[in-house]
Amino acid sequence: MIENTSKPVILVTNDDGVTAKGIKSLVEALRGLGEIVVVAPDGPRSGQSGAITPNLPLRLKKVTAKEELTVYACNGTPVDCVKLALNQLLDRKPDLIVSGINHGSNSAISILYSGTMGAVLEGCVVNVPSVGFSLCSFDQDADFASSAHYVRTIASDVLENGLSEGVCLNVNIPATEEIRGIKVCRQTNGYWAEEYEKRIDPIGKEYFWLTGYFHNLEPEATDTDEWALREGYVSIVPCKVDMTAHHLISQYAYLETL
Amino acid sequence: MIENTSKPVILVTNDDGVTAKGIKSLVEALRGLGEIVVVAPDGPRSGQSGAITPNLPLRLKKVTAKEELTVYACNGTPVDCVKLALNQLLDRKPDLIVSGINHGSNSAISILYSGTMGAVLEGCVVNVPSVGFSLCSFDQDADFASSAHYVRTIASDVLENGLSEGVCLNVNIPATEEIRGIKVCRQTNGYWAEEYEKRIDPIGKEYFWLTGYFHNLEPEATDTDEWALREGYVSIVPCKVDMTAHHLISQYAYLETL
Repeated sequence: MIENTSKPVILVTNDDGVTAKGIKSLVEALRGLGEIVVVAPDGPRSGQSGAITPNLPLRLKKVTAKEELTVYACNGTPVDCVKLALNQLLDRKPDLIVSGINHGSNSAISILYSGTMGAVLEGCVVNVPSVGFSLCSFDQDADFASSAHYVRTIASDVLENGLSEGVCLNVNIPATEEIRGIKVCRQTNGYWAEEYEKRIDPIGKEYFWLTGYFHNLEPEATDTDEWALREGYVSIVPCKVDMTAHHLISQYAYLETL
Repeated sequence: MIENTSKPVILVTNDDGVTAKGIKSLVEALRGLGEIVVVAPDGPRSGQSGAITPNLPLRLKKVTAKEELTVYACNGTPVDCVKLALNQLLDRKPDLIVSGINHGSNSAISILYSGTMGAVLEGCVVNVPSVGFSLCSFDQDADFASSAHYVRTIASDVLENGLSEGVCLNVNIPATEEIRGIKVCRQTNGYWAEEYEKRIDPIGKEYFWLTGYFHNLEPEATDTDEWALREGYVSIVPCKVDMTAHHLISQYAYLETL
C-alpha cells in the first residue's frame, strides 16, 4: 500500500512493459509533479486493448522504491495493472492516470486495439482523469526527447483542471523534432488493410503474422487525428467510454416490435 | 478459402471457445439463414476485449466441414478470428458477423472488456453488419433455449436490412424462460467494484483473483440495458466505434494554446 501523501498521486502504466524506454521517458517527464506510482506489465502487452485476466492469478512485484517513485511489475494486462493499483495498492483514488509513452501511434481506430488506451479507458470508467501518450514510432530505441515538453504540459493541465466525467484523452505525438503545436481532433475513420502474411513452417504447416497498414477513409478531412499528425502537430482526441450510438436509438426502436 | 456462394455468408465467432455450448446454440439458431463459417478461439478467451496478437504466429485449423457449415479453430483472440477470416478465408465480405452466445452478460461498460464484443466492433470497423449476443448466465451448461428465438429474429432482420455504417449491436438476453420482449437501450453508466481477492500461495507469496460486482451508477434510469435486463427484456444497444467525445472538442480546444 502506498503511504498517505498530500502530494498529487500519479498512476503510470503502459503496454510495452515496465522496462520500455517509453515509460521511463514518461516518468522523467512527470518528475516533480507528485508521487508517482508505476504499475506496468512485466513484459510487452501491445495490442491488449481492454483485456482483463479472469482465469489466471495475478502477481505484483515491487521493483523500485525511491523518493516520489515506486515501481511495480505485474504479470497481467495494462487494464489489470490499473485495476490492481486502484484496488490493492493505493489508499485513495489517484489524481491522474497516465499511460505510455507508447512505442507507436494509437491514433484513429487503433484506440480499439491499444493496451495503452485500454488502461486509460479503465481510468475513465472509475472517474479518474486519464491520459494516454503515444509516439508515432515503433522503434524500441525511439527518441522521446521532443515528447517530454508536451507530456508534461498536458499532464500538468489535466492535474490542475481535471477532465469532464466519462472523458479521457488520447494524445499522439509525431516522431519529429520540430513539432508545430497541438490540435484537438476527432478520431479518424478507417481500418487496417492487408493484415496477414502467410508463411509455411519447417514441417509444412501454414501460419500467419499480423501486419498491414492503416487505410484512412477520410484523407481530405482537416479535423482528424491522422491529419494533425501528418501536419506535424500533437493530436489530442477527447474520448468517451459510453459507446452507445445515441442518435440511432430511435432509428432502431422498431426492433422492439420483432 | 470458402467457396463462392450465392447464399448469405454469416461469420460466427465467440470468446468462450469453439467448443462452448453458447456458440453451438448460436449456430443452431442461425441454421438455414445462409452459409455459416465459424472461426472461433481454440479455448476460452473471456475478457480479451479488442486484443490482437502482434507477437505470435497465428494458426487456423479446420474442425468441421458440413453443408452450409464450416468450422475453424484459431489460437488467437476473437478479433484475430475475425481478421483472419476476412483476410485469409472468405473471398468476399460476409453479409453478417455474429459473436456469442456469450456465457455471461456483456451489458453496460462490460463492452470494454468483452471478447465477444471485441469481435463485433472489429466487424463494425470494416463495415460488416455485426451483432454480439450474450446470455446473462455464466454457467457453462446454461440453458440457451429461450435465446434462440431472439437470436434468429434479430440476425434475420440485420441480414435483411443491414446496419448503419459505423454501428453494431450489443444484444444481452436475460437468463429467464419468460422473456418479456426487446428494449432498445443505451449503455448503463457504472463500474466494477471490489475487484480482487487476495490469497497467499503455498510458498507464502501474494496473488490476486479477479472478482467483484457491477456497480450501477444510475439504478433509477429506465432507458438503460441494465434496466431492461432486470425487467426481463432482451436489451439491444446500438454501439459505435468512434469513441470521440464530439461534444467536448470545443471545450478542450484551449489545450491547443498550451
